Amino acid sequence: MYNAKAFSAASASSPLASTTIARRDPTETDVQIEILFCGICHSDLHQARNEWSGALPTVYPCVPGHEIVGRVTKTGSAVKKFKTGDVVAVGCMVDSDGTCEECKAGFEQFCHNMTLTYNFPDKHTGGVTYGGYSDSVVVDERFVLKVPSNLDPAGAAPLLCAGITTYSPMHHWGVTKGKKVGIVGLGGLGHMGVKFAHALGAHVVLFTTSPNKKDDALRLRADEVVISRNADEMAKHAGSFDFILDAVSADHDINAYLGLLRRDGNLCLVGAPEKPLSVSAFNLLFGRRSLSGSPIGGIAETQEMLDFCGKHNITADIEKIPIQKVNDAYERLLKQDVKYRFVIDMASLKGGA
Amino acid sequence: MYNAKAFSAASASSPLASTTIARRDPTETDVQIEILFCGICHSDLHQARNEWSGALPTVYPCVPGHEIVGRVTKTGSAVKKFKTGDVVAVGCMVDSDGTCEECKAGFEQFCHNMTLTYNFPDKHTGGVTYGGYSDSVVVDERFVLKVPSNLDPAGAAPLLCAGITTYSPMHHWGVTKGKKVGIVGLGGLGHMGVKFAHALGAHVVLFTTSPNKKDDALRLRADEVVISRNADEMAKHAGSFDFILDAVSADHDINAYLGLLRRDGNLCLVGAPEKPLSVSAFNLLFGRRSLSGSPIGGIAETQEMLDFCGKHNITADIEKIPIQKVNDAYERLLKQDVKYRFVIDMASLKGGA
Repeated sequence: MYNAKAFSAASASSPLASTTIARRDPTETDVQIEILFCGICHSDLHQARNEWSGALPTVYPCVPGHEIVGRVTKTGSAVKKFKTGDVVAVGCMVDSDGTCEECKAGFEQFCHNMTLTYNFPDKHTGGVTYGGYSDSVVVDERFVLKVPSNLDPAGAAPLLCAGITTYSPMHHWGVTKGKKVGIVGLGGLGHMGVKFAHALGAHVVLFTTSPNKKDDALRLRADEVVISRNADEMAKHAGSFDFILDAVSADHDINAYLGLLRRDGNLCLVGAPEKPLSVSAFNLLFGRRSLSGSPIGGIAETQEMLDFCGKHNITADIEKIPIQKVNDAYERLLKQDVKYRFVIDMASLKGGA
Repeated sequence: MYNAKAFSAASASSPLASTTIARRDPTETDVQIEILFCGICHSDLHQARNEWSGALPTVYPCVPGHEIVGRVTKTGSAVKKFKTGDVVAVGCMVDSDGTCEECKAGFEQFCHNMTLTYNFPDKHTGGVTYGGYSDSVVVDERFVLKVPSNLDPAGAAPLLCAGITTYSPMHHWGVTKGKKVGIVGLGGLGHMGVKFAHALGAHVVLFTTSPNKKDDALRLRADEVVISRNADEMAKHAGSFDFILDAVSADHDINAYLGLLRRDGNLCLVGAPEKPLSVSAFNLLFGRRSLSGSPIGGIAETQEMLDFCGKHNITADIEKIPIQKVNDAYERLLKQDVKYRFVIDMASLKGGA
């Protein structure tokens, strides 16, 4: 074991603060990574504050962070895919059994023995996993991704959660040229959704409640922007969408969007409103429509997404912060005051706490 | 025009009673059919009693019936597919524009100019269409189906609504050998769902709230029966279904079934509960599951379904009644006192009113 610098929450009500954590020495199949950048996902805040106490109670100290980009500093003797100096990434998962039906099919995210990157039982240490708000991490090479060299490493960090979460369903449900695609909500996920849908060749319509987001949505290459509170604007698009990606976690009227789908259209949730959704059966029956959900993506698909980003030069729009500003960033996140993802520059951690 | 005998409702509160209606003389492309049998669908009752006053208000007199089997008595000069004496069927639709994208793709049920078999604007008469509770009907040959000669014509009548409504989604979502398929509810639709899923080679699990339906479900060739009120029995099937067909129109907990789907599994509604469904987003996200709906089927698919029934000797389990018992049948329908579909023997109408 060795000591790593990190920022952790000591309790649900504590601000995150500088600390030292123990990381394992790399095993044969491990890659040790110097973390350069780590994105801030809303999940980090939920977990640090124990807001998922029912499903996934927080074990303290908690080190969040699952949008990690760094440089390889050491590799185990059996590691084949990586060498010292490579720019690599780690996302929401750091392990899975590798033997079950889901793993074999490339769906590690559905493996019953999958290990999340933070606050999850760590089979190596017996404690919980610690995430990317740290100067280094050690991860089995199966869960380490290659970052295309043309991508800005800071802007690439959010691809590991916000990116794959939006890319995977569009890829799975066949978003291509000629399709009409809606993106609901222009936040961390939504802005990636717009970029991917455009790069995949679709006609992209961004739905937002905020008229002041219109210009930015067009800049991000949405073809149209619809103010979702305007019933007339919504009605113009009735029955016309092949696919709608709904990235809104707040309560909202899902039926208004189901009615915009054409025959066999699909509305996929990537945000998860806490309250149950109220769904009219008639909206599904008329047009043989579907309502679905999709969580992150598998490892091979995540690499495919990164390669797609390399080819199309796609990164997230970010605001870089020093780690000492992480608590401020959380407060601003709650006010949706970020365009569109905070990314911690981990150089700030090295200078001391 | 000519006079046909029929049973109609004169108002939302009137029992159905004998009447005479005007039918058009066959045009060049029409088929005139002597109706032998007509199934009783719950929709007939809803429409006769104006229970859909919002979406589709009832115009009186109302002649319900869209599960029609009969014999061709006359054909227009341009009719190619049928000749006098053929045993034929008519379902929920009698016309569509034939030129739109949906019609061209074989989805007449989604055509914006589609004409329902009863209580729908009739472009020929200027009134509304009259359904199958009658001794004859005239229908464009495009909406007339062939009934395989080995099928009992009375048992075949419910195939035109209950049959296609359950066959179409199973066919669309790939129910085949090796798939595990759930059917929720053992009524008119559900019992057809069990028969089709079995004939398609799936492992069939019937969900019911009524332990006393177990034996009958097994007789209909369900492989297993689960009493849905028993949480332990339900839990044994968690994450295991490829497809679930939900044929229940009463309010029920859809989340209990979503949790039974495996990765990429789909729950398809064919019943339409009046109240909105309460859907947990997490149940969709975990496993990339879908909730969908499906209404009847296209004309080509309906013929395919009838041919499949001919090949597998599938008809509905029915109780034959004279038309004079239709009001009693409606009352028994409300008590779910039928195994599993009433079919009117139209010979009873010919004997006089």
